[in-house]
Parts: sequence; structure tokens; C-alpha cells
Amino acid sequence: MPKGIYNRISDVPGVTVGHSTLDSEEYKTGVTVVIPGTGDIYNDKLIAAAHVINGFGKTTGIIQIDELGELESPILMTNTLNVGKVQDALVEYMVEKYRDTEIKTFNPVVTECNDSYLNKITDRPVGREHVYEAFEKSEKEFEEGNVGAGTGMSCHGLKGGIGSSSRVFVIGDREYVLGVIVLSNHGIMDDLSINGIRIGSRIKDLTDSESNVDRGSIIVVAATDVPLCSRQLKRLCKRSAVGMARLGSYTGHGSGELVLAFSTANTVSKTKDDFAVMKVLNENKMDVLFRAIAESTEEAILSSMINSKYTVGYGNHHRYSLRDYLYLLNP
Amino acid sequence: MPKGIYNRISDVPGVTVGHSTLDSEEYKTGVTVVIPGTGDIYNDKLIAAAHVINGFGKTTGIIQIDELGELESPILMTNTLNVGKVQDALVEYMVEKYRDTEIKTFNPVVTECNDSYLNKITDRPVGREHVYEAFEKSEKEFEEGNVGAGTGMSCHGLKGGIGSSSRVFVIGDREYVLGVIVLSNHGIMDDLSINGIRIGSRIKDLTDSESNVDRGSIIVVAATDVPLCSRQLKRLCKRSAVGMARLGSYTGHGSGELVLAFSTANTVSKTKDDFAVMKVLNENKMDVLFRAIAESTEEAILSSMINSKYTVGYGNHHRYSLRDYLYLLNP
Amino acid sequence: MPKGIYNRISDVPGVTVGHSTLDSEEYKTGVTVVIPGTGDIYNDKLIAAAHVINGFGKTTGIIQIDELGELESPILMTNTLNVGKVQDALVEYMVEKYRDTEIKTFNPVVTECNDSYLNKITDRPVGREHVYEAFEKSEKEFEEGNVGAGTGMSCHGLKGGIGSSSRVFVIGDREYVLGVIVLSNHGIMDDLSINGIRIGSRIKDLTDSESNVDRGSIIVVAATDVPLCSRQLKRLCKRSAVGMARLGSYTGHGSGELVLAFSTANTVSKTKDDFAVMKVLNENKMDVLFRAIAESTEEAILSSMINSKYTVGYGNHHRYSLRDYLYLLNP
Amino acid sequence: MPKGIYNRISDVPGVTVGHSTLDSEEYKTGVTVVIPGTGDIYNDKLIAAAHVINGFGKTTGIIQIDELGELESPILMTNTLNVGKVQDALVEYMVEKYRDTEIKTFNPVVTECNDSYLNKITDRPVGREHVYEAFEKSEKEFEEGNVGAGTGMSCHGLKGGIGSSSRVFVIGDREYVLGVIVLSNHGIMDDLSINGIRIGSRIKDLTDSESNVDRGSIIVVAATDVPLCSRQLKRLCKRSAVGMARLGSYTGHGSGELVLAFSTANTVSKTKDDFAVMKVLNENKMDVLFRAIAESTEEAILSSMINSKYTVGYGNHHRYSLRDYLYLLNP
Repeated sequence: MPKGIYNRISDVPGVTVGHSTLDSEEYKTGVTVVIPGTGDIYNDKLIAAAHVINGFGKTTGIIQIDELGELESPILMTNTLNVGKVQDALVEYMVEKYRDTEIKTFNPVVTECNDSYLNKITDRPVGREHVYEAFEKSEKEFEEGNVGAGTGMSCHGLKGGIGSSSRVFVIGDREYVLGVIVLSNHGIMDDLSINGIRIGSRIKDLTDSESNVDRGSIIVVAATDVPLCSRQLKRLCKRSAVGMARLGSYTGHGSGELVLAFSTANTVSKTKDDFAVMKVLNENKMDVLFRAIAESTEEAILSSMINSKYTVGYGNHHRYSLRDYLYLLNP
Repeated sequence: MPKGIYNRISDVPGVTVGHSTLDSEEYKTGVTVVIPGTGDIYNDKLIAAAHVINGFGKTTGIIQIDELGELESPILMTNTLNVGKVQDALVEYMVEKYRDTEIKTFNPVVTECNDSYLNKITDRPVGREHVYEAFEKSEKEFEEGNVGAGTGMSCHGLKGGIGSSSRVFVIGDREYVLGVIVLSNHGIMDDLSINGIRIGSRIKDLTDSESNVDRGSIIVVAATDVPLCSRQLKRLCKRSAVGMARLGSYTGHGSGELVLAFSTANTVSKTKDDFAVMKVLNENKMDVLFRAIAESTEEAILSSMINSKYTVGYGNHHRYSLRDYLYLLNP
Repeated sequence: MPKGIYNRISDVPGVTVGHSTLDSEEYKTGVTVVIPGTGDIYNDKLIAAAHVINGFGKTTGIIQIDELGELESPILMTNTLNVGKVQDALVEYMVEKYRDTEIKTFNPVVTECNDSYLNKITDRPVGREHVYEAFEKSEKEFEEGNVGAGTGMSCHGLKGGIGSSSRVFVIGDREYVLGVIVLSNHGIMDDLSINGIRIGSRIKDLTDSESNVDRGSIIVVAATDVPLCSRQLKRLCKRSAVGMARLGSYTGHGSGELVLAFSTANTVSKTKDDFAVMKVLNENKMDVLFRAIAESTEEAILSSMINSKYTVGYGNHHRYSLRDYLYLLNP
Repeated sequence: MPKGIYNRISDVPGVTVGHSTLDSEEYKTGVTVVIPGTGDIYNDKLIAAAHVINGFGKTTGIIQIDELGELESPILMTNTLNVGKVQDALVEYMVEKYRDTEIKTFNPVVTECNDSYLNKITDRPVGREHVYEAFEKSEKEFEEGNVGAGTGMSCHGLKGGIGSSSRVFVIGDREYVLGVIVLSNHGIMDDLSINGIRIGSRIKDLTDSESNVDRGSIIVVAATDVPLCSRQLKRLCKRSAVGMARLGSYTGHGSGELVLAFSTANTVSKTKDDFAVMKVLNENKMDVLFRAIAESTEEAILSSMINSKYTVGYGNHHRYSLRDYLYLLNP
């Protein structure tokens, strides 16, 4: 399937992504924000869904998304132990932004992976200023690789992090797009497989004990401008797992894997109207979306690895870049 | 069914509860901690489950409890917008406590209700010192009513907050106990019904528009020393709803309702053993537990209301105490 | 809340109910059909949802309703061991009805409770002719009590069976209705409580060991003409439990409890259109529906008991009618 | 990972499989039974779980397995419209087998895929005699391919059906086994990929419109002798999807996909004992099982295709065998 202009989640109109990166001897971490793009997500909520592939994770905000099928928050990504601080910074950001209307309840969405192999995770260095910076820097042509929340992540025993991809397709008389951003931190080296070539098992020299225990996680966020209801978005989320499996992952015990999806086509606005009228895709036309999320998840994970650089982090741990081993794909 | 000595969740051996209360003109809020009582909950995890009755809530930690059936955290209660700060304080508490082993991942459980009717919720005043205070003050004979996280909560249009109750029963040749603690903040006045008497509709003089919109929440935490697996604990959680319904609640749209349960009978310890041997209750004997949680949830909610005092809070909003209207139960 | 004209599920336009009753010395059983009323449910599917309160049951068709949010089948009720035969009869009915288009897949919905206390359940006497008879006899003013699938059911240790009720309410500028039909077969005598009066414990003379073990089940089917999406219908289903709890049930281990709901307001038609436009209720207006299902479930269960007659069944087991003990409600 | 002796699900001690095949001009269908092997599954139930990948299916028995975590039935496979008749035959079989104890409730498990492309599905020809035959013929070295329930199934636009595989691994001081049986009927030709080679797109000459619409289904049943609780078995089920994805499937809208798993290590016997003592695997050791189910699902699907022969069925539809196209794997 053809890709969007940016080949990123930002190909979906309105969606932007911002990073704040902490890159020091001790800290390889950060925060990334996905702005869903209604301009006023708190008042013009979007229809959304989440799916837990493996619930070994600490993401917040899922319970309410499951119940109401709505997203009222930007989606933040950070490291496992920093969720609380980032969540509070997000609440502060929203309270300030909506100073006039006084927010009394708000469902913050903060996702996470565990970067403790390269980052001194117990210090929780990501704070208010980083969250605000990520918001300010949000853009269409955002960086991938070891940046933002991806700074300290590992994927298939190599350097992972932020990756993104998109697919364009036609329904009826117009073009639509589905985009994916991942925070990749899962999988073991031996399993890594690209287009069916088990490249991971060829990277023998790097294999150490740490490369073959899956205690990571992956977060996938998908956006589309196709009008879908929350049930359809949940079905969509589930197909993201196909992209992971194609790269060789089998969803290890310790790898929390979680998918979020939202559609920008219908807004759920605060209104006193009794009814809303919404457009939804014919269920029998879902396959093109299923294929799009499978393909773009696969590519986004690869992109997160190829765009990541060799990194030495906390405790002198290091992760190599897949980019330096791509030659092993040749016979 | 007979009650335990304290008629509180602390009748379950090992379980204690601590509060930190913020009670000023602007702030009616706080934090309450339920210590599950293995002494070392992070290393000796307990089997646990959660059940979402109405997911209009922001509780953290549920995804992992659902996946692994384990509790590795004390259970904290606070207000909706303060979850992030309280979670970070909890992480800090654990990181400090386990300084020697260096915690790299941890699933913090922070539950919440929305006390914005009586509390200036946007300020998020509950911080590190309050969380630590709640831990220090944890005890068997803890206070109920407007204390800790319950300080600013409302229930059925009256003052709600912290309530607790327990039931004792015999299985085989020994006695067991099930205890419940609630953070009550749900229901509307008209619906309040005690022993079938619709007392809420008799409190006419207090009824204002705010008393008859259900935008609260209720958190129920149950503990037992009966050996149960996580699936059985999930079944147990579901019966908690019966206690709410008996008091007249019908689980309004805006009322997030969530139940957590754990058993102190089996610990899941960090071990390299391949297998564990665990004792579990015969499924056909579950009914006594189902009845116990229904009864103690009902009583705990009532207790939260009867032990709460008349309160004037932020914005000069006030809530009356059910205690002052109990005479309406008489014919 | 005010009731509909029939005070039955058939107050929802288009909905009818039919029974076929087997009443002999050995057999106290039958089949009941709820016709959702689009005239052509297979081609004009309705939006629907299901909720399992206690999954100790054998109802078919739920998996697909959960996935697609659609109902394409009439809803049948029968006894536990007869589900297979009734399902095949339903398939035959549909294959014949749609002879011209050749049905190649179909999701039959057959619900059940266990009537083995009064019925020789192992014989599975309900067959093709009974299913067809139920369809033919479907009407607005259907019978309640020990009729159709309800013929051999027990409720709270007394005679249960088919009960129905409805509630009428206004949203915006017009009236809507929600109706419920139950197949009641759950609860124990001691717990039965009407308007808060524990009448069950007053019926001492009838109490035998069989009256106080909850190994029944209850099926609730709800219909409404309010336009709801499947997520909203699922939320609606959950509130049905409130009606059961108010009569004293605490959802015993052995009592399979399952709720189905559908809305007649939007049809999902076989079409090649890419998109559908649907009207859905503003989520903030759900409360009136939640209250309606709680109230009508409570009344439908009572109605099933009051309309049931004293019955002697297989093995000389007998069940008394609540009608004969209503005087115990007086002080 | 090494395979078991039979490389079938029957490598798990006690497990056998039997087929009954209907192969005529009109009928390409049948029934397959997986006997879990306690000898007395109704009284000595096994711990089990199910997972719905895509709920576009009509399998029965899942609700109760989810609730109780127990399997009390052999697992049958047949075609979509024949579920009712096969279920009733299974009930009859059990009623007869347990004539002395009189079964009053029973949770029959009947799974299905839709073979209407090759079979006159509306006739529902699989009856009592075929179910009994399948039981009688159950054995360790059962046939694969177009046999039993697999007779009329299609997979990736080629002939599918019954396939099986197993993996052997060591935990602690002994060997364990996990085996899988599939009823494959899913996927489209273009997507078929073997070891990363997109063989499906090379089978150009066969591609017709029917080969590239995924309206199939796949049923996976897994068995193991590792002691697992139902929550662990549910986690195991989910990893089966990895095997499907590796062959190129992306879980199309119309493809119902459902996984069942049981462990033969603990039996849940009818007893009056208050407690049971059970052995369960250390959660941190699950990965070997996750890998085993991913690998054996992948191989079982391939096996179902390679063991199936070119078939002409109802309406003169035909399906070719993958076996005849394996040469396309060569460069």
C-alpha cells in the first residue's frame, strides 16, 4: 500500500508529534506527545479505543477510553517510573490551558515503556518543563529513533525508540490515511526477522544475555481520518499485533504491549443536544484498514530501529543500531 | 453474617489503613493507603483482581493486575486530578524503601474519586509528605467518614468518604474474614434507600440540583484471607455491585465504579522455582464470599456516610451528614 | 417512571413475543421467541450488545454480538440441554425463510436457564415444531409466568418463568420506551426482598434445602427505540443487575446471568455503501435509560413470579407461587 | 524447538482426535472431536481458557470457560450451520455415557468454520451418527488435511482443513509438551507467506475473486501437560495469533478466529473438599510456552494445507492443494 507524504502518523490531518529528550551520562529518556489535532481535544473529544495485547504495563487512561470510547487528552509517552510525574505535568498543562472553564475532571493518557537498561530510571527526571517542551515542539516532520520517550529504549536487543509510518488508501471517492507511531522496546535479538530473513540470529557477535530476554514493551498509537466508531477502532487496534509478529516477536511474558487508536472524523463535543449524527464505515469495508495498520506497525517498528543510533547509557550498557547490520540481509 | 472485631477491612490479618487529611477553606481532600500486609508486598506479591463496573474513572494499575493477577503495590486513594502526584510519591516511597535492590519496574495502584464539589481540585495539593504520612499512620483501628481521601467526597447527595466493614464466616474447620473499604462518592439523594426505606426522597429540604446528578464514583477495595485465585477474586469483585444497588444506586453514567480485591493467603514470591503450589477454594464454596462482599460493601457505604460530618467546602458548597437524618427511617 | 401500554417489552414498536409450552407429567419446559421486529432481521440487522454478569451459562451467539455489535437473529429462550436442538430449528427456520437468497452464515441467539428441578431435562423434548409454533404465535400481548421457556423455571425458591415490563420516558421532543423480558430462574428464598421487605425469610413453611441453593440463572432481554450504539447498549445491559439486586439476589456462583439489549432505531442493512450515517444518544443523557432498565428488570422478575402458578413437575418436585404469599408483605 | 513423536496435539498424554467425514458431490464436511483425555472429562474437569481473536464466529461454550476456567466437554469441530445438530448429538452422547448419574447441566464446546464454498452448508448433514463415529475413531495418529470438519475448508485461497503440530521442551527436570490442532479456513491467497517467501502472490494462475476475500475462520485448540492456571492459559491462547501472522494473515474482518487451550496437569474434580491444592508454573517461565504455541500454530496451519488434496465441491467450486505449488518456494 502507498505511504503518506511524511510516512508518519502526522499524515493524518491535524496530528502532530513533539519530543523532549534527556540525553546525559545517567539519563537516556524523555517524553513524546501525540497531539490528536482537534485543536481543542478536551472539548471536542475524538472517538477512540484501546487494546491490551499483553498487560504487563502501566499506561493510564485506558479504563475510561474503554467505557466511553472517547479520547479527551493528548497521548504522552515516557518511561515506566516517570508516568506519575508526566501525568501531573499533563494535568497542569490542561488546567492552565483551560483556565477559564476550570477543568474538574480529565482523563490523562500516559503510556510507557521501560528504559532501565540504558537509563537511571529510578530518578524520574522527566518533569513539567519537558512535557511543556514536547508540546511546544510538536510538528508534522518529527524525528524518529532515539529521541523523546524513545531515547533509552531497546528493541530486539538493538537500539529502539520512536518510529512512525503511514498508509494511504481510497474508500469511495476520496483518499484516506492511517498513520502509526510506536515506542518500541520489545522483542529479543534471536527472533528479529525482516521480510522473512532471520537477521537477528545472524548478529551473533552482539548477542549477550540481555539481548535475549524480552522484558520490554511496545506502545502503538494509530490515527486515521476514516470515520470509525469505538468498536471498529478496537478491532483495528487488534490487527496491530500482526505487524509485530511479522518481525519475529511472539509477545514475551515481560513485554507489555498496548495499542491505542483514534479517528479524527467525528468529534464528540460538549453539547446539550440529545442526539448526535455520526458517519461510520460500513463494517464490510474494514479490511483495508486492517491491512494498513498491520503494514504501518511493521514499518514503524523497523523505522524506530533504523533511525536509532548506537547508544551507551547508564551503567555503561550499550545498544547497537540495526542500521549497522542491515548488510546481513544480503545472502 | 457476623462482623469482625474491628468491623473493618483490617480484620483481615496484616491489613492496615492510613490517612492523611487536608482540611482547609480551599482544600477538602487527602490520601488514604491500604497496606495489604505482607510486609514486603513488592517481593511477596499477593494474588489480586479488579473489576470495572463503570469505567468513568482514572485509577491506575488495573491493566497489569488483570494480566498477571498480582498486586505488588499498596493501594492508594485520592482525588481525580491528584493521581499523578500521588503515584509519583508512591514510586518514590517504594524506590527509597527498596534502595538496596533497585526497583526497575513497579505497578503503582492509585484509585480516585472526584471531590471537586467541596475541594479546589485543580490545585492538586496532595503531595509526597501526605503520602508518607498516610503510610506512617497506618493502623488497624483507622478512622472512617470525612478523613483521608474521603475528606471531600459526597455520597447520595450527602457527605460521603471512607467507610469500612467486614464479615466473618467458617469454611471447613476454621474461621475466615472478608473486609471491605470504600471511598464513596456516588449516587443521588432521591435514590438513597436503607433497608428498603427510601430515606433519600424524605430529605426534601436539602435537595438541590447538585444532589440529583450522579457524577461521583466509588472505589471498593476488598481483602480476604481465604485462598482464592485471581479468577475467583474477579468473580468476587463483581458481587460488590449488589451492595451498592441495595442502597438505591443504579450506577449512573458519570459515576466511575471500580472494585479491587486481594487474598492474603498465597504469596507470589520472586523465585527461580519452576512451579508454585497453591491452595485454592473449591469453586462451589464461593457463595459465602459473594454474600460477604455484598453485605460488607452495603454496610461500608452506610458507614462512610454515617461517620461523615456536615462539611462546608470550596466555593461555599456544603454537604449534610446522613447521621442527622437517620430519624427519617422511623415511620 | 411511567409504564408502557402493555407494560411489556412489546411496547417497543415492532417487538413481539411468542411461546410454545410443553406441560406434561415429565416435561415442564418450552421455548419463547423474542422477535426484534425489523421484519427482516437477517438483512436489516439491529445494533445490539450483550453482557455476562455470571458466565455459568450456555447461551449462544454472544461472541459475534460482542465483535460486530449487531443482532441478525430472533432471540430464543429454552432449557439448558435443549439449546442444540432449538438452535438447529432456528437455523432451519431461517434457511427456509430466506430460501431465495441462500443463507450461508447466520449467528443464532439461543439463551437458556436450567429447569431440571421440574422438568426431565435430559430428554430435550423441545423441537422444530415448538420453535415454529412460538414464531407463529408471537404477539404483543403475550402471556407471562409459567409459559414457553418459563414453564419449568424457579425463582427465589418459588415458581419463576417469563416476566416482562417497560418504562416510558421523554428525550427531547418525543417519547421513547425501554422494555424488558426475563426468563427468571435464579435466587434463593431467604434472600427474596420486595420493596425492602424480606418476604423470603417469612415463607418459612416452604423452605427446603432446594430453595436455598442458587443454581439457577436469569436471562434478561431489553429493547428500546432510543438510538444507541453497541457500546451504549453494553453499558445499558450492565445496569440490569441493579434490578436483580433490589429483589435480594447476590448473583450466586451457580446462577448464570446474562443480559442482551438491542435498539430498533438504526438498522444495519446489507449494502455496498461505504458509509452509514447513524443517530446516537448524547452519552450524558444515558441515565434515564439506566434507571429504566433497573426498574423494568426488577418489575419483570416480580411479574414472572406473580404470574406463575403452583406447579408440580418431574420427580414430584413442586414450586409454590409468590402470588399466594403476597399477604406476608403486610406488617 | 523439537517436535513430539506424533508432531500432533496427541503428543500430550491422554489427548486423542477422531474424525467423521462426509464426502459426496453435495457435501464436503464432517466433524472432528478432540478428546482432552482425562477419561472422565465431565467429572474430572480440566483447567482451560479461550481467547477470541476475531469474534465473527459461532462457537459455543466459551462463556462458561471464561467464567469458571474449566473444560467439562470434549471439543468438537464442524461447519457453521451444523453447530446446533452437533451440539445436540454431543449432549446425547454425554447423557448416555453418564446415564447412571443423570447429567442435569453440561457445557458443550462446539467450534466451527464456514465451508459453504465447497459444501452445501444449508443442509446440515452432520448428525448423531457422525458425532458418535468421530468419538469411536479417536486415536493418537489421526489424519490431517481434508478430513472430518476439515473436509470442505479453505485456507489462503487453497485447500485447508485439519492440521496439527507439537513442541517439546524442558522445564526443571522433566520434559513437557504443547500440541496444537487447527481447523484452518482463513486468509487470502495473495498474503500467504512461508518463511518470509510470499508464495501466495506467485500462484497467479489460480487467483480468482474468491481467493482474495477473507471470509473464513480458524479454530485453534492447544493442549499441554504443563500445570497452568486458567489465566495463564488465556495468555497462552493469545500468542497463537503470532503463528497465523507469520503465514501472512492479518485477521480479516470476516474471519472468525478463536483459540482454546487446556492443561491436563490439574483436574478439577467434583468433591466436597473445601480447598484444592494445585501446582502452577512460575509466571516468569511462560516464554517457552508462548514460543511453543506460536511455532506449532504456524506449522499446524501449514500442515493442514499440505495434507489437503485438490478438491471439487458443491457448485463445482474447487480448491487446489498447496502441496502442488511448494516448488514456487524455490528461487
